[in-house]
Amino acid sequence: MQESRLKRQIRFLLEVDKLKDVFRRSYLLSSRRRENDSEHSWHVALMALLLSEHADERIDTSRAVTMCLVHDVVEIDAGDTYCYDEAAGRDKAERELRAANRLFGLLPEDQARELMDLWREFEEGCSPEARFAHAVDRLMPLLHNYYTGGRSWREHGVGADRVRDRMRPIRESSQRLWDFAQEVIRDAEASGYLGGNDEDEG
Amino acid sequence: MQESRLKRQIRFLLEVDKLKDVFRRSYLLSSRRRENDSEHSWHVALMALLLSEHADERIDTSRAVTMCLVHDVVEIDAGDTYCYDEAAGRDKAERELRAANRLFGLLPEDQARELMDLWREFEEGCSPEARFAHAVDRLMPLLHNYYTGGRSWREHGVGADRVRDRMRPIRESSQRLWDFAQEVIRDAEASGYLGGNDEDEG
Repeated sequence: MQESRLKRQIRFLLEVDKLKDVFRRSYLLSSRRRENDSEHSWHVALMALLLSEHADERIDTSRAVTMCLVHDVVEIDAGDTYCYDEAAGRDKAERELRAANRLFGLLPEDQARELMDLWREFEEGCSPEARFAHAVDRLMPLLHNYYTGGRSWREHGVGADRVRDRMRPIRESSQRLWDFAQEVIRDAEASGYLGGNDEDEG
Repeated sequence: MQESRLKRQIRFLLEVDKLKDVFRRSYLLSSRRRENDSEHSWHVALMALLLSEHADERIDTSRAVTMCLVHDVVEIDAGDTYCYDEAAGRDKAERELRAANRLFGLLPEDQARELMDLWREFEEGCSPEARFAHAVDRLMPLLHNYYTGGRSWREHGVGADRVRDRMRPIRESSQRLWDFAQEVIRDAEASGYLGGNDEDEG
């Protein structure tokens, strides 16, 4: 007998509990421990909800919020790839696609397709919502790093140039958020949070 | 000079990072540790997104999702009140209202009012979206308890009658989810996860 629609939905919801055990490099603002992917997803979803007025293009806020809620689910299988780790970044796309197929595939077909499409749209950054979701997905960790005195940057020897480069997607979506991000980076530099020399330590 | 709109929004977003340090009684499915409020908020938001088709009344899914994202923010100040603790439950409403005023009050006025209204709507359960958000807010911990062998129920001596009573909001929103919840509770009873005698241990 075909598994009921509700049971499949529940199975997916139980499976993604594992996102709470995928830890990122960034620290909580209290500095007590590293943040996990489910916490981050909640936080960027809320950020998308509250900052959507700053997007340069007109966006459908609730689509951007949904993207934020599901964008990291693939890391349950693929793990968190540290954004400044180039070697690990090489097969990231392939690992994440496999993960998306398995995880979203737990859902009833129509919902699996819907979330798969949304996740792909996010990955490709091919819509105003996807570009905005990327912007907040970058801005939030910038703030976490800044407000913990650059702890994670210093641990990994990340310098200002790489951070600025990493933050570029913000510029693709919002001039106002980009101005703000640059201000934060300049201040982080002036405060010595970003002492790394990218050429040597990359 | 008035603090810029963006700076106020950012201030709120930084403040709510603290929700990641508010721990609940329920355990992760991996049983490694207790779940915190931000993880729970992410999880119920996703549940609302995926299960809204089961609501008896027609609902605006994205409003329900937003409610789920912000419904527990007040616990940053008011703490997590264990749902089976009657004494702590008495001044809960007052503590949470104060918290809502302070926290949402960090935002620009229009957004503060909007989230305050949404939170109040959730608390009062006075719309189809609020009733549905309540339903998923109850259903998710039921599953967490069930799939960890009733660990938190047993720790607090909670019996089937109290769980059934606690789950009633599900019935107010969705017959299908209520049938499912009852099936889970019956199975939990049969499995000995709910041995507590409510009269003695309440």
